[in-house]
Amino acid sequence: MKLSQPNILVYDPNHAEEYAESVRESGFTAARAATTYEEAEKFLPGTEVILGWKFPTELLSSPNASSVRWFQSMGAGVNDLVTDSSIPEDILLTRIVDQFGTYISEYVFAYLLHIVKDVPRMRQAQTGRKWDSFLSDTLAAKTIGVAGLGSIGVEIVRKARAFDLKVHGLSFSGKNAKIVDHHFTSNQWRDFVKDLDFLILTLPLTNETYHVINRDILYAMKPESCLVNVGRGALIAENDLQAVLKDGHLKAAVLDVFETEPLPKDHDFYSLPNVYVTSHLSGPSTVAGVTQFFADNLKRYLNQQTLLGIVDRKRGY
Amino acid sequence: MKLSQPNILVYDPNHAEEYAESVRESGFTAARAATTYEEAEKFLPGTEVILGWKFPTELLSSPNASSVRWFQSMGAGVNDLVTDSSIPEDILLTRIVDQFGTYISEYVFAYLLHIVKDVPRMRQAQTGRKWDSFLSDTLAAKTIGVAGLGSIGVEIVRKARAFDLKVHGLSFSGKNAKIVDHHFTSNQWRDFVKDLDFLILTLPLTNETYHVINRDILYAMKPESCLVNVGRGALIAENDLQAVLKDGHLKAAVLDVFETEPLPKDHDFYSLPNVYVTSHLSGPSTVAGVTQFFADNLKRYLNQQTLLGIVDRKRGY
Repeated sequence: MKLSQPNILVYDPNHAEEYAESVRESGFTAARAATTYEEAEKFLPGTEVILGWKFPTELLSSPNASSVRWFQSMGAGVNDLVTDSSIPEDILLTRIVDQFGTYISEYVFAYLLHIVKDVPRMRQAQTGRKWDSFLSDTLAAKTIGVAGLGSIGVEIVRKARAFDLKVHGLSFSGKNAKIVDHHFTSNQWRDFVKDLDFLILTLPLTNETYHVINRDILYAMKPESCLVNVGRGALIAENDLQAVLKDGHLKAAVLDVFETEPLPKDHDFYSLPNVYVTSHLSGPSTVAGVTQFFADNLKRYLNQQTLLGIVDRKRGY
Repeated sequence: MKLSQPNILVYDPNHAEEYAESVRESGFTAARAATTYEEAEKFLPGTEVILGWKFPTELLSSPNASSVRWFQSMGAGVNDLVTDSSIPEDILLTRIVDQFGTYISEYVFAYLLHIVKDVPRMRQAQTGRKWDSFLSDTLAAKTIGVAGLGSIGVEIVRKARAFDLKVHGLSFSGKNAKIVDHHFTSNQWRDFVKDLDFLILTLPLTNETYHVINRDILYAMKPESCLVNVGRGALIAENDLQAVLKDGHLKAAVLDVFETEPLPKDHDFYSLPNVYVTSHLSGPSTVAGVTQFFADNLKRYLNQQTLLGIVDRKRGY
């Protein structure tokens, strides 16, 4: 590495040193790890680039942070950062993109198949040593709707084709509209959901998508359809969803993200029979994946090229 | 339908009338249903075509059956019929082909994803109201081996591509060898299995495939690999598999077919922690599917065209 290296602060409450070590191994030796507010405060002076997760952003408005030019988030969702007024406007924000399609699409099809083939019934038969040769349903010829056609949505669409699903899509930008059989825009939610057997949410959380799945939209869905949320919790009005599920509308809801995370221990979602709760794990930020993305972006930064995953704060992601 | 219609006997111990009704609805009105030996015996004289499942074949060597020209099995596997000496050589045997790819490939990927994403751990976390944000493994970049590249194997390969798996294949005929990354022949079993993360058996049961998965082959597999059998139970030497699994070799075995079906209630497979037992349901013969195949074949029969799914008794399927 010939170019002069920026000072890098790697912040993560749990795994900062692991990430920093990986960043150093990729050739950027001036990377220091911080896991607490105090460590971050101590290392900030002179720091030009931050690779961060759950960073104490109030530090960024202090004079200590005057040298910071770029903040790379370790995640794909940045709704908390774009609305955070303590991050100065002149700090460039980037998020991880194009890393989660494989993971999240595998998660989605794991659950669609689990539900459609009725794996629980098969497991129950085994536990009871019962021969139960029932007729499973199939994904083939059913209709999936993918809300959000970014890199995650695109990968779900690709796998949906291999399962011979009919594929509908909704996106705000119209991007990738041509890869689906029917494309809907953001003022067509009711039309979009009414024919779907499976609705998959991969949208970012913005002012326009907050509680976009509410009572009205949920009741516009077919009673036997399934809802999968791998975007952000607050895409769904959770109280509405809970009421609708208790009413017996919807076959199942697969929820990896929630308005409050971790999902509070006393939440009804844990025990509703037609709800699958998972712990925001469908699109994991792995050390290897984040480091590779960050190192590529650092090279672009040093070469004054446009960075990948630049966040448009007005757009909201 | 203008051509003179053959007399058809539809035999099934449970659903004969349902199948017969469906056959009649497709235009072949001379279809009679039998569910017992006695009924079959009564209706045989004058019968030209049999659509059958678990048919009492000893009847076929009696003079009552002298008018029978063609026996269409309702299933894909015909290992019991090809070795059955009570079926006269001059009765044409056909089996259902090209009907099970969708069902069986969905079953296979339901279980591969269930295991790789560790759905049981997610379900356990939910039951315990625990936030367990662990890192799942992925199918992507792993290696699947498909033994048997008929219509079922081909459909598994197609879906494997969408999951970015490396795809190896083994077939006896060499058919479809070009659709896999590495093709192996029947004298290369050890080489075939040694690099696989997932071995999927879709082979018919013949003299050459009986117990082809034995202790030697199982130990040639990687300790963390998974075995899925959607072919026939006796492809696997079950005692060997049981011993190997108890030894902790293999991550999991997904078994839909068994040497004895229903699997006896006291069989260890039901309770081994790394075994998934299902009740020969991955490739169901549905009334609609069987009727459509049979009706197409009947039209070929009446037009003296070559039938679909002709069984070569010497080859064994």
